[in-house]
Amino acid sequence: MPISPKQCELVAIFANNIRRKRLELGLSQEELAELAGVHRTYIGMLERREKNVTIYNIWRLASALQIEPSQLLIEQK
Amino acid sequence: MPISPKQCELVAIFANNIRRKRLELGLSQEELAELAGVHRTYIGMLERREKNVTIYNIWRLASALQIEPSQLLIEQK
Repeated sequence: MPISPKQCELVAIFANNIRRKRLELGLSQEELAELAGVHRTYIGMLERREKNVTIYNIWRLASALQIEPSQLLIEQK
Repeated sequence: MPISPKQCELVAIFANNIRRKRLELGLSQEELAELAGVHRTYIGMLERREKNVTIYNIWRLASALQIEPSQLLIEQK
């Protein structure tokens, strides 16, 4: 089944939240990757929306960013 | 990196939410799969926590269950 615009929107919300929270905490992409236990190039790929993130990595990233996993899927105004 | 108990907890929350919402709507696993556009055996695997769901499928399932994607990651009391 093809990817719909709404699915892309959720991926964009997620990517924006990762980037915003990372910058709020003053972390580089590499520093966040190390904290989250993911590959150092992975954060850049997520922020550029090139990766279909899994629930395990949503948890890893939320934990490293000190927020609830659900918050990463909610658009922040 | 190994899967932590907290990650498993998030997967369990997700699995429980899928099952509870599906039953609330009176849908079989196969009916939900059809609505969400996923394989008919996929819902059972998710509910048994055998699958590492991706953000695209979180969107598909939330859409089929008529809730916000973020709600699937929040424990319902």
